[in-house]
Amino acid sequence: MPSTLSVSEYLIECLQEMGVRHVFGVPGDYVLSFFKKLSESPLQVVNTCDEQGAGFAADAYARLNGLGVACVTYGVGGLKVANTTGGAFAEMVPVLVISGAPGRQERLNNPLLHHRSNQFDTQKKIFEQITVASAELNDPATAMAEIDRVLDAIMRFKRPGYLELPRDMVNTPVELQPRPAALAQRSAPEALAEALCEATEKIAAAECPVIMVGEEVHRFGLQDLVLRLAEKTRIPMAVSILGKSAVPETHPLYMGVYAGGLGDASVREYFENSDCQILLGVLMTDMNMGVYSAQLEQRKIISVSSEQIEIEHHFYDQVTAQDFLDGLANGILSKHIYPWVKPPLFSTELDQTPPDQKITVQRLFQHINAFLNCDMVVISDVGDALFGAIDLVTCRSAQFLSPAYYTSLGFAVPACIGAQINHPGLRPLVLVGDGAFQMTGLELSTVARYHLNPIVVVLNNGGYGTERPMIDGPFNDVLNWNYSRLPELLGAGKGFRVETEQELVEALEAARENTDSYSILDVRLAQNDISPALQRLTSSLGQRA
Amino acid sequence: MPSTLSVSEYLIECLQEMGVRHVFGVPGDYVLSFFKKLSESPLQVVNTCDEQGAGFAADAYARLNGLGVACVTYGVGGLKVANTTGGAFAEMVPVLVISGAPGRQERLNNPLLHHRSNQFDTQKKIFEQITVASAELNDPATAMAEIDRVLDAIMRFKRPGYLELPRDMVNTPVELQPRPAALAQRSAPEALAEALCEATEKIAAAECPVIMVGEEVHRFGLQDLVLRLAEKTRIPMAVSILGKSAVPETHPLYMGVYAGGLGDASVREYFENSDCQILLGVLMTDMNMGVYSAQLEQRKIISVSSEQIEIEHHFYDQVTAQDFLDGLANGILSKHIYPWVKPPLFSTELDQTPPDQKITVQRLFQHINAFLNCDMVVISDVGDALFGAIDLVTCRSAQFLSPAYYTSLGFAVPACIGAQINHPGLRPLVLVGDGAFQMTGLELSTVARYHLNPIVVVLNNGGYGTERPMIDGPFNDVLNWNYSRLPELLGAGKGFRVETEQELVEALEAARENTDSYSILDVRLAQNDISPALQRLTSSLGQRA
Repeated sequence: MPSTLSVSEYLIECLQEMGVRHVFGVPGDYVLSFFKKLSESPLQVVNTCDEQGAGFAADAYARLNGLGVACVTYGVGGLKVANTTGGAFAEMVPVLVISGAPGRQERLNNPLLHHRSNQFDTQKKIFEQITVASAELNDPATAMAEIDRVLDAIMRFKRPGYLELPRDMVNTPVELQPRPAALAQRSAPEALAEALCEATEKIAAAECPVIMVGEEVHRFGLQDLVLRLAEKTRIPMAVSILGKSAVPETHPLYMGVYAGGLGDASVREYFENSDCQILLGVLMTDMNMGVYSAQLEQRKIISVSSEQIEIEHHFYDQVTAQDFLDGLANGILSKHIYPWVKPPLFSTELDQTPPDQKITVQRLFQHINAFLNCDMVVISDVGDALFGAIDLVTCRSAQFLSPAYYTSLGFAVPACIGAQINHPGLRPLVLVGDGAFQMTGLELSTVARYHLNPIVVVLNNGGYGTERPMIDGPFNDVLNWNYSRLPELLGAGKGFRVETEQELVEALEAARENTDSYSILDVRLAQNDISPALQRLTSSLGQRA
Repeated sequence: MPSTLSVSEYLIECLQEMGVRHVFGVPGDYVLSFFKKLSESPLQVVNTCDEQGAGFAADAYARLNGLGVACVTYGVGGLKVANTTGGAFAEMVPVLVISGAPGRQERLNNPLLHHRSNQFDTQKKIFEQITVASAELNDPATAMAEIDRVLDAIMRFKRPGYLELPRDMVNTPVELQPRPAALAQRSAPEALAEALCEATEKIAAAECPVIMVGEEVHRFGLQDLVLRLAEKTRIPMAVSILGKSAVPETHPLYMGVYAGGLGDASVREYFENSDCQILLGVLMTDMNMGVYSAQLEQRKIISVSSEQIEIEHHFYDQVTAQDFLDGLANGILSKHIYPWVKPPLFSTELDQTPPDQKITVQRLFQHINAFLNCDMVVISDVGDALFGAIDLVTCRSAQFLSPAYYTSLGFAVPACIGAQINHPGLRPLVLVGDGAFQMTGLELSTVARYHLNPIVVVLNNGGYGTERPMIDGPFNDVLNWNYSRLPELLGAGKGFRVETEQELVEALEAARENTDSYSILDVRLAQNDISPALQRLTSSLGQRA
């Protein structure tokens, strides 16, 4: 069947159908003609300074949008997003990496073309390790099926995929193929019935069951089912760190973050004393489990994931999360009043302190909590920016983003680009340590270029603060930048240097008013000051030792 | 045999024996105990802002030192140096990547530990694609042999190697093993005799033989042999771009860069009209061959590489480059006077122009040529910073560094750290486009931290200038930074904004005087201005088409 669509046009059409409106990347000669096609399409190209920035931006975009795309050149571009793709794999983020490549014709006689590291298929072999599907689009007869296969796998598993596009294939017509019907996952009816029966009995028999909501609930769009189940039964809900904001934090049944010793003590006590712990889409990562300070007992557990249902010590692998949650939410479970009582919401009334009081990590987070509103998305980088943020209260779904499992430093600034490009009405509040900022913070150039207006709070404690309590040395120091002077380099933005509480309050208010550009707050903290969450964890691990 | 050496101590001792004095990296918890060991050893840890910077710095250090080391944490660190390692593989740079990793004990029951992307061996599988040898040091009985094997392979092939060090192995004693004698490469005597006889006859019969010196001559330390051969026979020597400065550019037999249409026209004419082209360690990359504008004829060629000797259309794979060059240099070839006559050295007398003349790319490189002295190393990033630098004259071995094959943007600024840390007396003159600077230029923070004093010339033409003539669009633009204001952000350095020739001259002189810190010159060029070399290439490719 003759086609008027080229490989690149078919790919762009698929992306549009899947709700993608932006592509993050850096051009290079092997991908230039595809960038040209993108710029002529309804998709908008967002140029980052470095490919690493594109990778993180696409990740954040994907978390909000359901699919994100990073587009780079061969070798020098592709290998730079190996880390961001590895992170998206770990945290189940549906990102497509499109890499340009030398044309098929150019590869004859195996020449040493620039950007080639080892063999021509080296980059694809690398991405096979960190994606759920990958393809080199080197054949017009299979290009369409290969694009479909990779995109289907990304959506099915919510993990990254990889497409390599030789530059002489960009304008090559695809041979149209009838598209096979997508295979929906189905439960085996008897297994489903058995699992539901067992779980229903277990929950009904419990005195104080509790739900823990994880990241998969957000990724797979199961929030409504989870809320229906909780509301029907009145079982209170905690969240994992990585799942934070997957259900609204203002919901009457919302408890807070459960993360062993890292989370709130009252949440922990209720959760660990519960006789039936219903884990919904929770990745059992070390961080989610409070660096394994969490004390869960397998005999109490019902765990639902995209791959299987687990009850106590046995598994059902023929039952989907969707069917199981649907069955529970619509089944015979009835409403109870369980012993948990929601405490009053975090008060925005702060204790008064002298205005020249030096700012501390604890007070910084209290002020930020008071400052947050429902038009903001909190994006936390790794370290105490993340630990401290556990105690923040955000108010609607997906208003908290962080790489809380893979924990790659430098995520937050580029991520705020992806988030706000996706959702211009959502203003990013970025929490980032100075060490992380020095990795990717200059992506504020991209922020300036695209007229975004995040508020960036640099937790400046002179180095890798969470490493110091483990093993310290000069290798944990970083140079002290004048972060508030960054606008002079970039020719955009407003900078604030903050040493006292009063200066913080004033800077936050000025940043709120500054809607035309980014604001950056250089918050000078004592080197060994840490957040309450990290204090709890240290104390909890200390008790265990 | 009981040992008092731990795995980390043995590794550090090996590195010291091989002449390593510095390790570039960023710490993270899986590698913290190894960083501690490093900081207690004679090796100096050099902290970069981002792992990418450590990778490029280790690369440049390796080019000058013979071995360089990047040390990173698992996943979020390791995958960030995939690109720099891929580049070192392509350009035959002996870099060792050491990655921390979760301890063997921690991996029991396959937990989801932070920094884990897919499986625990995912990172090692990735590095297998871009290194000549790799090992996970997970067994005290084999750790020593594995370290030896990886280091031997790096030195044998002059390409990167990878060692993964689980954190619970850092202090584990190695079981000492008798170290097998290193296997030296040997030529098969009869093959060597035949190859030498054939090559000698071919050279002796030629009317105007010519030598082209490539990067392997520098990597394998063959410079003296090459010079002996050239001086004995008086055969003139060109270099490849990647091999530039492998022989002294002030040598009476030095012709200049041969790179087809990219290089000097008179060098090209002589080289391509030669009836015997002796290629010594030249990688036949697209860039070295002037984007394939080079016109070489196989029947004229004698090509010597680390893997084989090639004469016309046949190969000798049992003959080493060392033995072959030694045989040629000490053989029966006699001295001739060939027709090439060295032109006078580049004049440092510049034509006078009005002082307020706008600066152009051509004049910029002329001024830099006049500015260079023998205590400087030129480090060129990719793009016109590299093309323009082809015409620069540097004066001793290894005074020119660039990623002229893999061409990864962002190489130069972090590379200047590795170069000057290795050789404090050598002042880096960094040539970098604005697009490349925005990727890694903030590693000037590391420059400031370690009190280095490079002179950084930003060729500011508002974007990816070498891509515009191919396919242009807004994706080739970058935000225009006030590069000269960077010292205000970093609290160190001197910045200069340059628009005219006079300002350039003054800024270069002020930079020369500023030996206490880095200097950065924001050289504002017209968007479509290009170097003479790039003009030659365009014209040459135009004639071919």
